[in-house]
Amino acid sequence: MRDVYLIGIGQTKITKNAGIRGRYMAAEAIGKAIDHAGIERKQLGMLITGNMTAGRLAQQQQLGALIADVAGLRGIEAATVESACSSGAAAARWGVMSVGGGYHDAVVVSGIERMTHSTLEDTTAALATAADWELEGVKGECFISLNARLMKLYMETYGVTAEDFGHFAITAHDNGLSNPIGFLHKKLDMETYLNSRMLADPVKLFDAPPVCDGAAAVILATEEVARAAQHKGLPMIKVAGSAIGTDSLALDSRRAMLELDGVAISTRRALEQAGIKNADVDIFELHDAYTIITTLSLEAAGFAEKGKGVHFGKQGEISRRGKLPISTMGGLKSRGHPVGATGVYQLVETYMQLTGTAGENQVPDPEFALVQNIGGTGATVVSHILQRCA
Amino acid sequence: MRDVYLIGIGQTKITKNAGIRGRYMAAEAIGKAIDHAGIERKQLGMLITGNMTAGRLAQQQQLGALIADVAGLRGIEAATVESACSSGAAAARWGVMSVGGGYHDAVVVSGIERMTHSTLEDTTAALATAADWELEGVKGECFISLNARLMKLYMETYGVTAEDFGHFAITAHDNGLSNPIGFLHKKLDMETYLNSRMLADPVKLFDAPPVCDGAAAVILATEEVARAAQHKGLPMIKVAGSAIGTDSLALDSRRAMLELDGVAISTRRALEQAGIKNADVDIFELHDAYTIITTLSLEAAGFAEKGKGVHFGKQGEISRRGKLPISTMGGLKSRGHPVGATGVYQLVETYMQLTGTAGENQVPDPEFALVQNIGGTGATVVSHILQRCA
Repeated sequence: MRDVYLIGIGQTKITKNAGIRGRYMAAEAIGKAIDHAGIERKQLGMLITGNMTAGRLAQQQQLGALIADVAGLRGIEAATVESACSSGAAAARWGVMSVGGGYHDAVVVSGIERMTHSTLEDTTAALATAADWELEGVKGECFISLNARLMKLYMETYGVTAEDFGHFAITAHDNGLSNPIGFLHKKLDMETYLNSRMLADPVKLFDAPPVCDGAAAVILATEEVARAAQHKGLPMIKVAGSAIGTDSLALDSRRAMLELDGVAISTRRALEQAGIKNADVDIFELHDAYTIITTLSLEAAGFAEKGKGVHFGKQGEISRRGKLPISTMGGLKSRGHPVGATGVYQLVETYMQLTGTAGENQVPDPEFALVQNIGGTGATVVSHILQRCA
Repeated sequence: MRDVYLIGIGQTKITKNAGIRGRYMAAEAIGKAIDHAGIERKQLGMLITGNMTAGRLAQQQQLGALIADVAGLRGIEAATVESACSSGAAAARWGVMSVGGGYHDAVVVSGIERMTHSTLEDTTAALATAADWELEGVKGECFISLNARLMKLYMETYGVTAEDFGHFAITAHDNGLSNPIGFLHKKLDMETYLNSRMLADPVKLFDAPPVCDGAAAVILATEEVARAAQHKGLPMIKVAGSAIGTDSLALDSRRAMLELDGVAISTRRALEQAGIKNADVDIFELHDAYTIITTLSLEAAGFAEKGKGVHFGKQGEISRRGKLPISTMGGLKSRGHPVGATGVYQLVETYMQLTGTAGENQVPDPEFALVQNIGGTGATVVSHILQRCA
């Protein structure tokens, strides 16, 4: 396989009721990424789009060809990848294979999701398709209730309280304050966190991500293309690892409900490819959809022991200047979680961190970042390792 | 890139109201393909699933991980690919890249679609998401009406009649008679074709494919795995070409409405990869969703001149013993068109033809087959060239 580099990024401001069609949002992000990479459209061999809900909420599928057309790429090899909330990163996984495998020298990966133009009821139902409908959905479960089950079980098993989860949300909101394209710009304190509306006991409003719209894109390319397109003074960013791991969708079918095996498998594969260990990871841009998922991800990915993940970061370890920064641009919690686009936003943000262009949100001198995007409550887990090259 | 071989096939009987859950249908096809290839589940590195409508009609997305779990592949790298009716072949395209690119030595590609458990109205609405919703769907267009537009324009432009299209449907039905897993087993004559119910003038019932359920799977692998798994006496089947081409979704945005540019691009790319010309193609397993699409595909793929495609095959050229057999196992028209599975059924059937195991449907001694699967009315076109090796 050939080495693959991330050479261009584009993102739209995360909004509600953007008043702009989804295809144009996606095309805007793609256009920005192409301009940022400084390459020509004709150099691109493929467009892979991550999306989850457009078929239900926008009556629109076949987004690959549709967006290609609007983005000035008609004719290009194109398709859509779906793995619920990890669709964006799964699309990037295909992009990595197509470049690394020798099929294309440069490709564009986009993620797009519009979730606010339909009723909250419809959006909730669309999101519930990420769970196991026959085992969970038909019983009335939705993502909030499934995460509530996990959180409640964790609290009972390890004897922790709601307050123990608060620092994850507070850190994300702190980081989100200075992300200009982020959705929320709201300082959060423990009192507000604890008193926020109960969605499904014990999940409160500030344990969960906001519903919003967004589109992001990245350009992946060979070393040769990357060198030609290299931005003056910026280091090259290599995709040193890329892997998907899976687990059952239904919580009750899992080996152990509080152990995210998909995270463990996916992380291990990606670290092995990169030839690094957990201790080498300078940023863990994780899937903080719910504070319980942050907790379980830290454990399953090997950064905290079982039952200790919830306490990780209480001494500032997860802040931008801590030993393992997470949610560095606000995460899903504050930047927002336009589901099929989230994984691509994460790659965009991590590129910024590794090139030292994250502005106020800059983490000091990171070399390796683990970027993780999760579908469902842990069923499809996509991990990428991005590495800053000399 | 490494050479990629198709080493195992599995398909379920195409049915209506199967009374079996989609995930088990898919797992059945996958199990058959694994058994047929004679490999172990642990040898498989990835499962890619093609599906179009489950999010709307079965409240279920994230099929990659879901089906992996049921098929005994929990943990495996998995995702879903969607490009409307070409989802199955687009999934295979990713499979080819993952093996050819060196990422996995063997992968399984599955296609699954259940279209008969919901109301015909819901199914029609789900299928309409393959068209451009904002430019076509909102005006009330569905796939039948869009194909009617194309067919009417073709008839007016080239001065042909409804009868001129009949032989495509008749040939498909003839071939479908002896396909044991096919949906329709009905001899069709010109009179019945011409007198069939008008769906949207000039598209009649027998110009269109039936709504049905089905699942199919193929195993793709390296030469080394293929040799180890080689079936006694059967030739090895190489994937000599694999490509996607795209066009606008909306008919009114196309360069020329009667020229399927996506077909032309996709075919050219695949033929070039295989290093062959149209004259070398022994079977064209095309996307005969509508008789007008068969017509336009023959033209755009370079087998007939503009305006002449409709007459191609009237002297038997498209029959099993003709110079360019199409729809050899009944095609979409008679075998059936479970949309996201169709492209995988086509690969299964072509494997059978090239290995001489197609039974009564056997085409004499084919070496090269062009297999083509189309999303929408020509927006995403996936072509594979399968080659029988000595």
